[in-house]
Amino acid sequence: MNIAGKAYRTIWLGDDGWSIGIIDQTRLPHALVVATLTSLEDAARAIRTMQVRGAPLIGAAAAYGVCLALRQDDSDAALDAAVALLARQRPTAINLRWALDAIAATVRRLPPAARVAAAYRRAAEICDADVAGNYAIGRHGGRLIAEIAARKRPGEAVNVLTHCNAGWLATVDRGTALAPIYEAHDAGTRVHVWADETRPRNQGAALTAFELGAHGVPHTIIVDNAGGHLMRQGLVDVCIVGADRVTSHGDVANKIGTYLKALAAQDNGVPFYVACPHSTIDWTLAAGDDIPIEERSADEVLTVSGRASSGDLVAVAIAAPGSPARNDAFDVTPSRLVTALITERGVCRASAEDLAALYGGPP
Amino acid sequence: MNIAGKAYRTIWLGDDGWSIGIIDQTRLPHALVVATLTSLEDAARAIRTMQVRGAPLIGAAAAYGVCLALRQDDSDAALDAAVALLARQRPTAINLRWALDAIAATVRRLPPAARVAAAYRRAAEICDADVAGNYAIGRHGGRLIAEIAARKRPGEAVNVLTHCNAGWLATVDRGTALAPIYEAHDAGTRVHVWADETRPRNQGAALTAFELGAHGVPHTIIVDNAGGHLMRQGLVDVCIVGADRVTSHGDVANKIGTYLKALAAQDNGVPFYVACPHSTIDWTLAAGDDIPIEERSADEVLTVSGRASSGDLVAVAIAAPGSPARNDAFDVTPSRLVTALITERGVCRASAEDLAALYGGPP
Repeated sequence: MNIAGKAYRTIWLGDDGWSIGIIDQTRLPHALVVATLTSLEDAARAIRTMQVRGAPLIGAAAAYGVCLALRQDDSDAALDAAVALLARQRPTAINLRWALDAIAATVRRLPPAARVAAAYRRAAEICDADVAGNYAIGRHGGRLIAEIAARKRPGEAVNVLTHCNAGWLATVDRGTALAPIYEAHDAGTRVHVWADETRPRNQGAALTAFELGAHGVPHTIIVDNAGGHLMRQGLVDVCIVGADRVTSHGDVANKIGTYLKALAAQDNGVPFYVACPHSTIDWTLAAGDDIPIEERSADEVLTVSGRASSGDLVAVAIAAPGSPARNDAFDVTPSRLVTALITERGVCRASAEDLAALYGGPP
Repeated sequence: MNIAGKAYRTIWLGDDGWSIGIIDQTRLPHALVVATLTSLEDAARAIRTMQVRGAPLIGAAAAYGVCLALRQDDSDAALDAAVALLARQRPTAINLRWALDAIAATVRRLPPAARVAAAYRRAAEICDADVAGNYAIGRHGGRLIAEIAARKRPGEAVNVLTHCNAGWLATVDRGTALAPIYEAHDAGTRVHVWADETRPRNQGAALTAFELGAHGVPHTIIVDNAGGHLMRQGLVDVCIVGADRVTSHGDVANKIGTYLKALAAQDNGVPFYVACPHSTIDWTLAAGDDIPIEERSADEVLTVSGRASSGDLVAVAIAAPGSPARNDAFDVTPSRLVTALITERGVCRASAEDLAALYGGPP
């Protein structure tokens, strides 16, 4: 996607042929800063500190983390250690595990001397497949938006509510939940996005608003509390969110607060779609309640970072001094609240039968 | 209630016998600052800028605003102008209108020379009645908490989720939604409160946490997104919130986001109570959708204020530059999602029949 006319992915191979460039997402929207990863530890830190975030993107970053590890030590032991280190940086998004399994399976059967080159090839494939899959998600979801647009009066925008950031910044490019919005917008359909700010890390206000603005998509930031009220007012035509893990039965782990929006959508007859590539499906789990939910630092709740009038980035404490906080990063939306999944293979009900039919069962 | 051992109400008559003292709630929890209101305009500004906020408290502040206006001009015209000015400062909370009607009815039939003294007496009565009513709400709601506690294992706390601030800071004293919590805590019941931070103005993180902490009630701040997840985990026994307006049929306008928590409570079988005094009931409206919803400045969404590490209060911009925001301050929770209302007269279903039976119909 473009920022100020220049095309970017969120992660790329450096001109030196081995280091990895990323957009440091902890600095957005206040500054566009590129960081370079040159070691396994760099990659692990980038994932843990959320310089890269979004389920598909952390998968891609983990794949490149294995590449960087193998450059230093191409043994089985080093491979295992790298996979173990990267896997434990974020527990909820299954894409991380999926990408690590994919790249480990590729390189383990090769002689050590052949592993680095193969790992880089496989990581590049993972990235390119992510982008291609997201464009496909965009086409399938774009048709759903076009159908809603066809029922609107001329000139009326389709109002899409999204939560957190499942745009191109959450993937290698194009996004999952935002891909249908870009598809519709690029095709000339009038679309307007309600962007939940998504406390505590404000990825909606910071990242979703940033990338929609850069692409020229009309949007409005709202607090996470507001979506239900807007739905009651008839101001939301459709919800589209991403996912960090979808079980084989269609339960969805996604950013904390997703469940509340799904409840409001059901109460108001608003379709609630979850956009997810195959790498987000966990075929080993049936029940969403079995998905491990990351608990992050209370500081993310108790302090907020932003631009002071001086232009400096400043963290401010918002809460009563001494009061503790709890910070569960994800919640689970049961499949009964999901109208359908939008995958790269098409749109399907969030059910074991439909997922198995679409993918032919577990890989 | 006490702050650092000193008893406070949120609003009081000054030692001079006419000026009005308030706690400036825009400065909490960072500083305890007392402000003095000496004119109608001061009172209107305090309500508009939310130095005083919370439906019962803005009613009390408006009553004293009429007193201050009459000191300067005790004519019918001045009375009407004061009522009109104060009424339009905040549109949603009906307590504002109720208090203005009450004080205007008292003084209008008196000769102008008798009005000031009568107005101050009536304003003091409104304040004292608010406090007495809140203690009654506490007793009725406290019994509900005690019933839940009786089903807990020994040593287990009753987990109460609340949204925004409907504590003593939202009233003259003791609070509405928090009154049952104080009642239970003071009686030795183990209570723990999940305090929604309540974006965009963070009254939960700033005010609810502050007053619970000052009173020694265990509590944890959570983002507004988290309550549904906690309910799914079985970590919430009961929700208790306040209200800005309750219709004659039991629909509830309260801080934006209340509706989402009510949906989650219903989905998880968690009782959802709304604490409200009679002054919050609008007997002229049946349908919640007819309640006017205040829309506030987008700046409240786009910027956050807090303590920088220097100790200074600093406002920081959190969103992508140039992105717009929308800021509806309240939403409506339909009566079907409300387990019961906790009023000063007792606990009753949120229905036209039960409200009419409890109060004998409109006053």
